[in-house]
Order: sequence, then C-alpha cells, then structure tokens
Amino acid sequence: MQCCAPNHYDTLFGGAALQLMDEVSFICATRFSRQKVVTVSSDRVDFKKPIPGGTLVELIANVETVGKSSIVVGVDIFVEEMYTEKREQAVHGTFTMVAVDENKKPVAVV
Amino acid sequence: MQCCAPNHYDTLFGGAALQLMDEVSFICATRFSRQKVVTVSSDRVDFKKPIPGGTLVELIANVETVGKSSIVVGVDIFVEEMYTEKREQAVHGTFTMVAVDENKKPVAVV
Amino acid sequence: MQCCAPNHYDTLFGGAALQLMDEVSFICATRFSRQKVVTVSSDRVDFKKPIPGGTLVELIANVETVGKSSIVVGVDIFVEEMYTEKREQAVHGTFTMVAVDENKKPVAVV
Amino acid sequence: MQCCAPNHYDTLFGGAALQLMDEVSFICATRFSRQKVVTVSSDRVDFKKPIPGGTLVELIANVETVGKSSIVVGVDIFVEEMYTEKREQAVHGTFTMVAVDENKKPVAVV
Amino acid sequence: MQCCAPNHYDTLFGGAALQLMDEVSFICATRFSRQKVVTVSSDRVDFKKPIPGGTLVELIANVETVGKSSIVVGVDIFVEEMYTEKREQAVHGTFTMVAVDENKKPVAVV
Amino acid sequence: MQCCAPNHYDTLFGGAALQLMDEVSFICATRFSRQKVVTVSSDRVDFKKPIPGGTLVELIANVETVGKSSIVVGVDIFVEEMYTEKREQAVHGTFTMVAVDENKKPVAVV
Repeated sequence: MQCCAPNHYDTLFGGAALQLMDEVSFICATRFSRQKVVTVSSDRVDFKKPIPGGTLVELIANVETVGKSSIVVGVDIFVEEMYTEKREQAVHGTFTMVAVDENKKPVAVV
Repeated sequence: MQCCAPNHYDTLFGGAALQLMDEVSFICATRFSRQKVVTVSSDRVDFKKPIPGGTLVELIANVETVGKSSIVVGVDIFVEEMYTEKREQAVHGTFTMVAVDENKKPVAVV
Repeated sequence: MQCCAPNHYDTLFGGAALQLMDEVSFICATRFSRQKVVTVSSDRVDFKKPIPGGTLVELIANVETVGKSSIVVGVDIFVEEMYTEKREQAVHGTFTMVAVDENKKPVAVV
Repeated sequence: MQCCAPNHYDTLFGGAALQLMDEVSFICATRFSRQKVVTVSSDRVDFKKPIPGGTLVELIANVETVGKSSIVVGVDIFVEEMYTEKREQAVHGTFTMVAVDENKKPVAVV
Repeated sequence: MQCCAPNHYDTLFGGAALQLMDEVSFICATRFSRQKVVTVSSDRVDFKKPIPGGTLVELIANVETVGKSSIVVGVDIFVEEMYTEKREQAVHGTFTMVAVDENKKPVAVV
Repeated sequence: MQCCAPNHYDTLFGGAALQLMDEVSFICATRFSRQKVVTVSSDRVDFKKPIPGGTLVELIANVETVGKSSIVVGVDIFVEEMYTEKREQAVHGTFTMVAVDENKKPVAVV
C-alpha cells in the first residue's frame, strides 16, 4: 500500500501502523487455522523509524509459535521508497490471536 | 485484505482499539507538553474483554511518567451499554511518546 | 479529536462540525434516557469562528430541557491550539432528540 | 464514541444528512459566485421523515437570496425507493454561505 | 447517492474492485519503473464471479508489456474462503500506466 | 462533488474515478429497471485528461442499450473549475449491469 493519510508531520501515525499490523495478523492466523480468531494481546511494539509519506509500505506476517488455542504472529513493516530501490524494516511486533467458537470461547487450533 | 465488513463477530477489532488508544495518547501528550510528539512504542496491551457493537466506548488517557524527552501515557477503554447503566473497563495500555523538534530529534519536555 | 480532514481552506467544513455535533447529541441523549433516540431537528447554528487545521477540537454536550418524549441537547465546540494554551468556543448549537420505540413512535423519556 | 456500526436503526443519521446538505450548499454557492465561500450558519432543520437504508437519496440545492457577500442556499433531500417509483421530500434546510478573500474576510458576491 | 450501507447484496461492488485493481497497478508500475506513473486506461474487466462478504481477497499484479513510456499491468483478484482452503480467481483486468514527468508529460520508462 | 482525496500528484486517481462511475451506473440502472442489478463488466475506459484537485466533478449516466437482462450504461465525468466557468469532459466509460433475482440469477429487465 501507499503511505499515508498524513498526520501533521507527514508520517504514518503509530496507531495506524498498529491497526494494519493487527489486520495482517488476523489474516495470517485465519489462513493458518481456518478458524475464527480474535486478538487477545499485542506485545511491545517499537517504532524505530518513522514511516514517511510518499512511500510504499509492505506488511509481512508469519506464525511464530502455536499453543493449544493461541497463535502468535510476528509482523514486520517494511518501508520502500517509491523512486529508489531503498527499502528497510521500520517496525516489528507480535500479536497473539486465539481461535474461538461461536460463543467466543477458546477452541483448539490444531 | 478482508472483504467487506470490518468484523464478522460484530465487535471492535483489536487494531481499531489500538489506533484509538494511540490517538488519545497523542492528544494527552500534546496537551501536557505543548510540543510536537510522536509515538515511539506501545507496551503490551491485553484485550481482556471484547468490545461489542451497539455500545458506547470511552477512552481516558493520563500521563503516567515523564522523562527527559518522553511522556508515558496510560490509556483505558471503558465500554458502556447504551440502554443500561452497565459500564466496565475493557482494555488498558501504555504508549510512550517523545517530544521532537522539526528534524524529528528528541527535545526536552519540561 | 484532532482537526481535520481539510477542505481547500484548511479548516473544518461546517458540515463536518454539524455531523460531530449530532453525534455527541445522540450520545448525550442516550446516556440521559437510556432509550433509543433520533434527531428530529437542529436549531440555527452559527459558525462564528473558523476551525483551523492543526488544532484540537473538543465537543461538550449538555441536556438543556426535557419534554415528554424529547430531549434538547446543547453542544459547544471548543478549539484548542496544539502548541499554546489558547482555547476558545467556536460553535454552539442545539439538537432536539426524541426517544422512540421499535416502530419509531415517540415514547416517554422519564 | 459509539461502537461500531453508525446507526442501529438502519437509517441515515441526522448529522450525516447535515453534512451532505452543507456540501451541496457549498457547491451551489461556489457555482453561483465563482468565489471562495464558507458556511456561516445553518438555519433550523427538521427531520420530518427518517431516511431508511436501501434507498436512493437525492439532494437539490438552490440559491434563495443573495446579499452583499452572502448567499442563502435552500437544500432539499428527496428519498426514493430503489424498487418502486415512490419518492418524497424528507428534509429541507437553508445554509448561509459567505464569499471570502484569502484572509477569510467577506467580499462582495456580485 | 445510495443510503446507507454500501451494498445490499453483501458482495464487493464492481467499483470497489476496480479501485483496488488500479491501486495495485500503480504500485506494480511504480516498482517496475521507479518513476511517477498515472493510469491512462483500463481495459474491459469482467466480473465473472461475485466477491462475497466474509472472504479474503488477494490482488496480484504483473507487468505484461512495456512500451516506450507505458507499462501494461495485468491484475487478478483471487477470492479465498476464510474457513476452508477454497480459493479461486474472480476478476482479471489490465491497466495501462504511463510514466510522466513533473509537468505530466510522458517520459521513457527504460 | 468536490475533487479529491489527493494522490501524490494532487489529481483524482483512475481507480477512484472508476468507483464513482460504477456507483452512478448502479443508480442509473436501478432507476431504469427498479430491479436489483449487479455490474458484470466495464468496457475500456480512457483517462484522457487528469482530474485535478480543487475542481468540481460531475458524473452523468445514461442508459445506452437494453438487452434481455442487461442494461448498458454510459457514464461521463465532467470537470468544472471552481472559480471560472471552464468545464470539460474528462472521462467516458460504459458499464454493463445485469438484473438479478435473490439467488443472483439473471432476470428479464422489461
């Protein structure tokens, strides 16, 4: 995707990054489990580098560990300049998703 | 991406909650310091209770600690039913904001 | 909240202000009555001062009068500069909400 | 704020109608004057009929009166059922727009 | 306009699909050329299958042919069920992008 | 409507134009048939002229041909400068809509 609905510094807000990271975690955990999942926690997220406007932003999610009903997903945000080949990791975070049944009770993921 | 409604469980996604929490942290730290601030990290956030549709959602942010150029803001989300007096805390998180100058370098907050 | 999705003068459009005012009136009347409410009219609203971009905007709603099934809510918009303590009232309006049943017929609010 | 769907009665909120009315007033006054205009007030608006989901909504704006620097625009909202020919006026309002110069000072419209 | 939910058949509108396809074409042509590009045409797009709500949607864009200043991008939309492994192509389209300079004049892409 | 949520060239993206064109095609075909319709294809669309920010954009849709269950809608986008009388056609496209029953099977439109 392209960055960004700008804040007043013309960078992606931390909160917008967190929302995107949660969304890809959801998709990743859904594809892994093919079950309904909800976010139960996000671990500490460091915004090491600002994500400037006028860049391409790529999010990559991977399953890191799998528990009885939980799936821990690691998410990296890469920032890529539009008119050069420069690309670097800007943010890493982990989100814990839990598979739930129709009553929102945890169910086994495997 | 998901098609098409944001959440098939009719609850607020974790990512949307994180975005709102970051936004109120930004406002809280801006009011406290009257300086430009950016989010540098969010601490672990637990989504203890789902935030169901058809509720009122209130976010309350407080400055917890102040460092040389950083402001740690605690944010609570309260969920309030629309047609009863029931209200309870659903989420707590802390966001670390840093005051920056025009070149995005940290500056003293006090 | 922060202002604004800018128009071409980099100020908050009157229409966006009206929408926010209606929303806080709805929440205010819902909390007061704990019944379903709908907007039946907005009184004259004067936009005395523009609401510039890069400011904080605060909306405060109060129940002004209560009729058999209606609740009149007064709403003020305060504009606060981000990097000074300057804050002033920019807009005042009143919205009349009516409590309704499932068939959208008025019901008593008290 | 409310979580999460905009309206639990499946109708257009009053505030959304006001925002649309302001937008068409802006376009109408711009076309009339070919000058920059801002909203200075909205007169009393009655929401006589709800605007249900699954309908077509048409807004029609007309210049009603013209002052030295002001243009009063009347706006009607018509609601049209999608699968019948039924169509009726749902809302009428008037918005006062003022032509302004670059410093937001009123200027003559004619 | 329509009031109020985007689609009363709970599927992705053709127009929303076209917008997403144009966006990935833009990113694809930007990455290929590392130059500013604009869309000059979209070829015939067939919506063979509806894209239902509650699915995952994946867009894949590839450069198909390259002219002096134009890049033709083919875009496929795949629809994947969330809770089964079923996945199929729903839409294919091609978008012609042209590299432009600051005055919006075509420039060579290679 | 006013143009635009800007891209990085401060013009309306092709994809946003396509979405608007599909929406007016839908309304046009709905009004013509008073039946549920879906988009089955868009024909080649040429973006002859950019649609710059700070303009008024008008979309006009007309039924061009009617088949057994299909309605071909032609859509023109006119761009009008806000502060002059200059107005010109920027885009033309045709969208084929098909009337469908509750099971999304084609039905006769007349």
